[in-house]
Amino acid sequence: MGYDPPALVSLIENLSKLPGIGRKTATRLGLFLLRQPEEKVHALARSIVEVKEKINFCSVCHNFTEQDPCRLCRDESRNTGTLCVVEGPADLMAVESTGAFKGRYHILGGVLSPLNGIGPEDLRIDELLGRIDRHEAHEVLLATGSSADSEATANYLAELLKDRGVRVTRVAQGVPLGADLEYVDQATLKRAVENRREA
Amino acid sequence: MGYDPPALVSLIENLSKLPGIGRKTATRLGLFLLRQPEEKVHALARSIVEVKEKINFCSVCHNFTEQDPCRLCRDESRNTGTLCVVEGPADLMAVESTGAFKGRYHILGGVLSPLNGIGPEDLRIDELLGRIDRHEAHEVLLATGSSADSEATANYLAELLKDRGVRVTRVAQGVPLGADLEYVDQATLKRAVENRREA
Repeated sequence: MGYDPPALVSLIENLSKLPGIGRKTATRLGLFLLRQPEEKVHALARSIVEVKEKINFCSVCHNFTEQDPCRLCRDESRNTGTLCVVEGPADLMAVESTGAFKGRYHILGGVLSPLNGIGPEDLRIDELLGRIDRHEAHEVLLATGSSADSEATANYLAELLKDRGVRVTRVAQGVPLGADLEYVDQATLKRAVENRREA
Repeated sequence: MGYDPPALVSLIENLSKLPGIGRKTATRLGLFLLRQPEEKVHALARSIVEVKEKINFCSVCHNFTEQDPCRLCRDESRNTGTLCVVEGPADLMAVESTGAFKGRYHILGGVLSPLNGIGPEDLRIDELLGRIDRHEAHEVLLATGSSADSEATANYLAELLKDRGVRVTRVAQGVPLGADLEYVDQATLKRAVENRREA
């Protein structure tokens, strides 16, 4: 696209490096930004730079934070003795947005994945065991996903934790709310039947 | 989401103002940027600022450009006497990417849309007539879209131009390449039959 202004070409190239943004979307975004008032464009650019400058990891739960320890780890009202183990920050946000969990978190930083060369030493498992050994929790809620790797990671952690005197729980699996049974996939429905509970 | 670091919240808010980017995508992009190396993030922020600083409108065709007149208007090899009229810069890019057009462009800046209060005086129609009167073209190729407003705009322009001694053409409408006839919508197929040509 040699006919485009170089600054626009360079913006489109940088935008199309973002996940899920292809060349067409990047072009649309680039042209949109060109039409925006200067102060809005500067605000976006500034917030992109600041997110890297200001944010680091919490030394306790390993979530992103501007202050260490993070707000959740400092909040004494969340010192409930339950530790929710999640794969990454996006999962923490998802759990937190439900409002159903009031304890603290521990971010693994991924899942075990032998095919991708990710073993226990690549995750923050030692840090998790350290927190248990310092009696930070009497219950560990495993909130990993439902992929094969995520399940294997949860099983591995449950095995590791079972002799350490903590209750180990997992988030429930079953039919999603609002779903018609006939459209639920077989594996989910099988799990939902196996995990049936008293009505 | 009071638990998030404010810099991340602010980035997510700014990203979700972009067209087609909702809160979930903005969150995913924000977390992605946090994980990127500093120089990549700065490159993106810089290119966003530069696109506003460096780019202006070409005084001839009204496309975005860093130099006035733009590269296309300065290119003497494109002085073919055919002027392609498009609605906006994205349409110019689309036509240009086909490689099928070697002339110059004129950007209208929209289409006539009485319902939205957009009349002829809001588009660059006077500028187009001026270019014709200065004998910049002997053919005007109307490359507007196929919506009702776009069609009305093309008809309006064709009417305006017909007494000015230029040939007025329109991009062909018909069945898209690779489409099965049974899946082509009725209006398109009707147009394709009406516009049938010798094989």
